[in-house]
Amino acid sequence: MVHVNDNYLKLPGSYLFSEISRRVSAYQAAHPEAKLIRLGIGDVTQPLPPAVIRALHEAVDEQACAKTFKGYGPEQGYSFLIDAIREHDFLPRGIELSGDEIFISDGAKCDVANFQEILGGDSVVAVTDPVYPVYVDSNVMAGRAGELGPDGRWSRLVYLPCTAENNFIPALPEKRPDVLYLCFPNNPTGTTLKYDELARFVEYAREKECLILFDAAYEAFIQEDDVPHSIYEIEGAREVAVEFRSFSKTAGFTGLRCAFVVVPKEVRARDAQNTLRALNPLWNRRQTTKYNGCPYIVQKAAAAVYTKEGQAQIRAAIDGYMENAALIRTGLAESGLQVYGGVNAPYIWLKTPGDMDSWTFFESLLTRLGLVGTPGAGFGPSGEGYFRLTAFGGRENTMEAMRRIREAGHWSVWCGK
Amino acid sequence: MVHVNDNYLKLPGSYLFSEISRRVSAYQAAHPEAKLIRLGIGDVTQPLPPAVIRALHEAVDEQACAKTFKGYGPEQGYSFLIDAIREHDFLPRGIELSGDEIFISDGAKCDVANFQEILGGDSVVAVTDPVYPVYVDSNVMAGRAGELGPDGRWSRLVYLPCTAENNFIPALPEKRPDVLYLCFPNNPTGTTLKYDELARFVEYAREKECLILFDAAYEAFIQEDDVPHSIYEIEGAREVAVEFRSFSKTAGFTGLRCAFVVVPKEVRARDAQNTLRALNPLWNRRQTTKYNGCPYIVQKAAAAVYTKEGQAQIRAAIDGYMENAALIRTGLAESGLQVYGGVNAPYIWLKTPGDMDSWTFFESLLTRLGLVGTPGAGFGPSGEGYFRLTAFGGRENTMEAMRRIREAGHWSVWCGK
Repeated sequence: MVHVNDNYLKLPGSYLFSEISRRVSAYQAAHPEAKLIRLGIGDVTQPLPPAVIRALHEAVDEQACAKTFKGYGPEQGYSFLIDAIREHDFLPRGIELSGDEIFISDGAKCDVANFQEILGGDSVVAVTDPVYPVYVDSNVMAGRAGELGPDGRWSRLVYLPCTAENNFIPALPEKRPDVLYLCFPNNPTGTTLKYDELARFVEYAREKECLILFDAAYEAFIQEDDVPHSIYEIEGAREVAVEFRSFSKTAGFTGLRCAFVVVPKEVRARDAQNTLRALNPLWNRRQTTKYNGCPYIVQKAAAAVYTKEGQAQIRAAIDGYMENAALIRTGLAESGLQVYGGVNAPYIWLKTPGDMDSWTFFESLLTRLGLVGTPGAGFGPSGEGYFRLTAFGGRENTMEAMRRIREAGHWSVWCGK
Repeated sequence: MVHVNDNYLKLPGSYLFSEISRRVSAYQAAHPEAKLIRLGIGDVTQPLPPAVIRALHEAVDEQACAKTFKGYGPEQGYSFLIDAIREHDFLPRGIELSGDEIFISDGAKCDVANFQEILGGDSVVAVTDPVYPVYVDSNVMAGRAGELGPDGRWSRLVYLPCTAENNFIPALPEKRPDVLYLCFPNNPTGTTLKYDELARFVEYAREKECLILFDAAYEAFIQEDDVPHSIYEIEGAREVAVEFRSFSKTAGFTGLRCAFVVVPKEVRARDAQNTLRALNPLWNRRQTTKYNGCPYIVQKAAAAVYTKEGQAQIRAAIDGYMENAALIRTGLAESGLQVYGGVNAPYIWLKTPGDMDSWTFFESLLTRLGLVGTPGAGFGPSGEGYFRLTAFGGRENTMEAMRRIREAGHWSVWCGK
């Protein structure tokens, strides 16, 4: 009989957000009067900006008429969008990309999950810890992770802990990995690397011949000047780094789906004969064979993000979310909690108080205050003892959540059983 | 240094449609006065139907307002679309599917390319020949195809030739494969299997414990009553078959992107301990980990296809394409060519005359008549000696193409150098 990919069977059964959803539903069923506020999943709540809506309507009308109808487009994306990305996201930072170094897709989750396909099956992979689970799970599925140990670590992965002790700045790996996933501004911790801190990783990758997969999905939330928006702002990164970007959080596209990957021509890896091979044509082959391109109307919508009007509108939405982040930081700090992140990212990462584990804190927050967040343990072993809240809720919900926390007083009053 | 997936390096460099495009561009550049007609790539030319356009505009407006805005949706698709599919595509044929057996996606190309991921890496794969190249290439990338021989065949693939000699009905494999890709109505030959012919494969798969990956992307073009629209019309198929469907050709969605996979709960495969495992939860895990769902507005558009108005509109478009197919069949036959397909599918497959190879015929058609088609050799070794034309051109273009063929007279006059 045909066999399954046994690597899939190694994955733990329950996915973080399904488990949260299960617990919240159970609580709500038992307490139908409770008005729950969800600050858990990182989904946007602001509608699509007017410039994007207008572009969508116009593109839909093009699709209604034989003369302007667009069928299959280039799998790599339309040049009108690629050019807008080059000119607005990269050129102003001194980064020159050619059009065929940018690949439009329907989401950064797909891109970061798929990119490992073009790499060797026995590559050693390093991840920061806590981490966005997709980096780990996609490598488990590909057979690169080894076995899951009782400590929650996979035997073949290299973990780079990011905790309050190191100020959430990962140390360079002690054991050299082939591939290094970095996400800054970080999900889940909401922290960032400054130029010199990221430069250390680029230097390391160049010296040790590693590939950096750099997830910059939250770059639009950066407020401070000393934080790089793109890894290509670091000299030498073009030879060792691939960068993932997304319109999801930047422009409210979580339900519309558009993202892109930058694969510079200089990024190379070795084949079985030790010959250097550029990754760009391999990724191009992957995308042309397994993907049919992002919908035309969605690409037109994404291009509208780069108009003057679109830029002002997404900036206003991001500013709104970052005001939420500030409210959350203040509210949590006032109740005596230790707070991180939320300055250059829409995520607030808090230390659970009094050695409480993160699922216990989840239950306290849910049952005492009717607030839903995400237990840090769900993001990896070093996430235990931490908890994530997001700034993506509506303003009223965010204010009501902070009102509940403020009224409940110091954490020692409402936390615990 | 990090290594590449060496399987990618085994793929032949030039993809079929790129090579066609290169030759056509070169010819057009040398003959700027030539009015070329493209009946090569299988892309639709009719605009999106009015019901779909209206649904898109409405859904876009929902995305403009915080109260109706939709962010992340279920990775598996919204139930409003899944239910419409169950009720319209399957129930009327006596096929009962539960909602969690249907997975909405952004394209059948992605789905058929990705599905092999959940299967064992050493699975033996069978394909009909000629074949849609994605089935082969995705398995080459996964390391299942072995080496490419001088005869154009991969050493570890099982080929089931479909030629005029067997009336394009593949024989059962002599060597048992683990996985069997079947596409009917077929791309590229435009031919179909009748109920009893498909039933033979289902019976074989049940007896030999194989998995059938059934691509039904062209089912909406079926005109004759004795041709199954779904493999689940065959008794026992729920245990051995996964079915791929698409809105691309059915409703003009090649630029809008929506498709779905049916994975019945009964389809199982063995793990390393020989235990039977259902594929449905594995595919669910794949999609939830590596995919973020089809855009909400696109799913609303797909649901509109199932309204009374939508059904009438897509039927009219399909009828128009099938009238093109009939015109092409007649025109080619009048010039003395042997013609297949085009009755239950939008593809016409012709035998190249006088032992001419398919690329030579491509050149004759291009340079003598200004017509662009697809050489059969591009679809596999058994495609040599055949040629594909599609019914997706506009009516005027199709008529003009046939006028040129008719005026050129018998093939022996215009074919050849």
